[in-house]
Amino acid sequence: MGLIVIRYGEIGLKGGNRWYFVKRLRKNVRDCLKKHDLVGEVHSVGQRVYVQVEEVERAVEKLRDVFGIVSLSPAQEVAADIEVIMAEALRVAEVVGLDETRTFRVKSRRADKAFSLTSPAINRLVGAHVQGATGAQVDLSDAADLTIGVEVRQDHALVFGQTVAGHGGLPLGSEGRAVALMSGGIDSPVAAWLIMRRGCGVIPIHFRQSEVELAKFMDNCQVLSRYAYGWDIRPIVLDHREVFDETYEKLRRLGAERWACIFCKRALLQKACEIADQHKAKALVTGDSLGQVASQTLDNLEVISYGIEKPILRPLIGLDKTEITALARRIGTFEISTREACSCPYLPPDPLTKASLPKLRAIVEKMGDGDEGRGTRDKGRGTREWGVE
Amino acid sequence: MGLIVIRYGEIGLKGGNRWYFVKRLRKNVRDCLKKHDLVGEVHSVGQRVYVQVEEVERAVEKLRDVFGIVSLSPAQEVAADIEVIMAEALRVAEVVGLDETRTFRVKSRRADKAFSLTSPAINRLVGAHVQGATGAQVDLSDAADLTIGVEVRQDHALVFGQTVAGHGGLPLGSEGRAVALMSGGIDSPVAAWLIMRRGCGVIPIHFRQSEVELAKFMDNCQVLSRYAYGWDIRPIVLDHREVFDETYEKLRRLGAERWACIFCKRALLQKACEIADQHKAKALVTGDSLGQVASQTLDNLEVISYGIEKPILRPLIGLDKTEITALARRIGTFEISTREACSCPYLPPDPLTKASLPKLRAIVEKMGDGDEGRGTRDKGRGTREWGVE
Repeated sequence: MGLIVIRYGEIGLKGGNRWYFVKRLRKNVRDCLKKHDLVGEVHSVGQRVYVQVEEVERAVEKLRDVFGIVSLSPAQEVAADIEVIMAEALRVAEVVGLDETRTFRVKSRRADKAFSLTSPAINRLVGAHVQGATGAQVDLSDAADLTIGVEVRQDHALVFGQTVAGHGGLPLGSEGRAVALMSGGIDSPVAAWLIMRRGCGVIPIHFRQSEVELAKFMDNCQVLSRYAYGWDIRPIVLDHREVFDETYEKLRRLGAERWACIFCKRALLQKACEIADQHKAKALVTGDSLGQVASQTLDNLEVISYGIEKPILRPLIGLDKTEITALARRIGTFEISTREACSCPYLPPDPLTKASLPKLRAIVEKMGDGDEGRGTRDKGRGTREWGVE
Repeated sequence: MGLIVIRYGEIGLKGGNRWYFVKRLRKNVRDCLKKHDLVGEVHSVGQRVYVQVEEVERAVEKLRDVFGIVSLSPAQEVAADIEVIMAEALRVAEVVGLDETRTFRVKSRRADKAFSLTSPAINRLVGAHVQGATGAQVDLSDAADLTIGVEVRQDHALVFGQTVAGHGGLPLGSEGRAVALMSGGIDSPVAAWLIMRRGCGVIPIHFRQSEVELAKFMDNCQVLSRYAYGWDIRPIVLDHREVFDETYEKLRRLGAERWACIFCKRALLQKACEIADQHKAKALVTGDSLGQVASQTLDNLEVISYGIEKPILRPLIGLDKTEITALARRIGTFEISTREACSCPYLPPDPLTKASLPKLRAIVEKMGDGDEGRGTRDKGRGTREWGVE
């Protein structure tokens, strides 16, 4: 059995709620172990979560994708005795082949203030021992080739030489749930991932137009599942035509095809609201990024959002395409999202870029029956309740 | 007079709208020069904007904060003749003291395809010349100590040795305007900046509770002004008590002080909607980050947003506090936002974390007159139009 030390950052700041978050983190860590057939035990002491596990290396590789974890280190548990700590630190240095051509530093932390040596004293003693034996140079900066960590607790000490970064965020499931509208494109899976990372369980929904885009959606859901510990990704697929065809036909008859994207997005958001209610989700998530394409204007955003009952979370709204693409690569959805694409059959040659509420209202009135662009739930209501009076 | 080459990234992708964005970028670049008493001329050719200016170094320092710019390079304009280009490249290398201990590479771009040499051929010839004269090693990777850029145009060539990063984004003013709710804290100025970077003119609004927080708000507006080219930051300050005191008194009488934050935020958002209408702004911007404090739950977000007529842009909703803090440092608002703080006098000891619409409705009904938490515009309307029927 080996030991892994898990550090959580933001959770530590959360005062009274901290125990709730740490409990949730332990639960999700256990779920991760279970999903990968890793046998281990999870507990927390002080500001750390500890995992005792058989396959340390594989466990670290999987656990780094548990949200809420800032970093992890495979560690060796030894007696809280400076001689033993020094010996273990040297062993760690030797394992990675530290020699006179490389640099290192020691970073100690003394959770047990009763321990006879202060952290700087531990650093000096351990550092001198490792330097004497290996000839390596000390570099106290982040540029050091090796950082040896020492944590002294009441009845033992931990020594480690490797720190693997996690994604940070909050434990999944600690912040409720939301319905994420996902196409087959680059942006929407990144948006869903960012909201998941903030602890929110995501229910992905796709409005099917083609097998090509559906397959990309499903594959991206698979990727999101790799981060979904303490939460299961259960994709929902609806037929795009059922949600929008009738409305589109009316737009076409009115010669208002330029409004297709606006009415389509309203229809999808309304439908997503219904799904959210069915699943006790409190918000919607979209991949909107301001100004990224001609129709993603603030004017259109206002008209598309107007009267939608749930808050719409748009985590990409302030990001550049280069930043979104970098995130997609990091998450693992980029290759999938950039496969051959199937364009939307409703896309007008010249989509509206300057929608306005009065114009929307005028078209809705011309349509007559007041149910365009809305989900079935609102059928039969007038334009007033629709929010465009 | 010296020359600066400006590269814009995302704008180049925008097809038919590209000229609109480039025109706006030129306008903002001119505004930047003017605001800093820099005398210069701005024009665009191909995928570049060029600035002819007296004080090149100071101009680069200011222009890098113009949104829409990916990078800039002070450049030398020379004849489109390979001998002249080689000589200028060597001069650039000598200016920065390139010698045998350092590495360099040459990156050419041939806008004039009629030029007798291809880009790889230019790279080879220029590279060999510089290497021969300085003894420096060639490194084709990004790790090279010096990258010498060559751009061959129809009637001249540009040679440069320095590339300064800009912030990217879209030219300010190209994406409408929004009202940004700003406290004196870390998050809200970062949110405003991110939305500005996407081309949206921001109107900062502060609900004054104390001189301390007001001063931080005003100072942060000053910092935002450093990025506001083609747009003027005009802060609006309202009295917090006028917007919320009456409602708070009613909550207190009902023993519902735990709801203070919910009703307060609703009141501020409603008031911000009014201000937005007065200024033709289409959206609101807030610094909300999911789960960052105990009351920033999805439940609360749903109740706070319900019935707010403008879309609420929350660019930080998917970011960690560490990421937001890093952005605040980069923008220059961190030091201001972390000065001595004055806490909110309405903050209950145990603010609600699980608000719900039925509970909100119940409290609104008990309050009786149906105008709580709303802006003056809605006064006299019933709870139904308030969106909590």
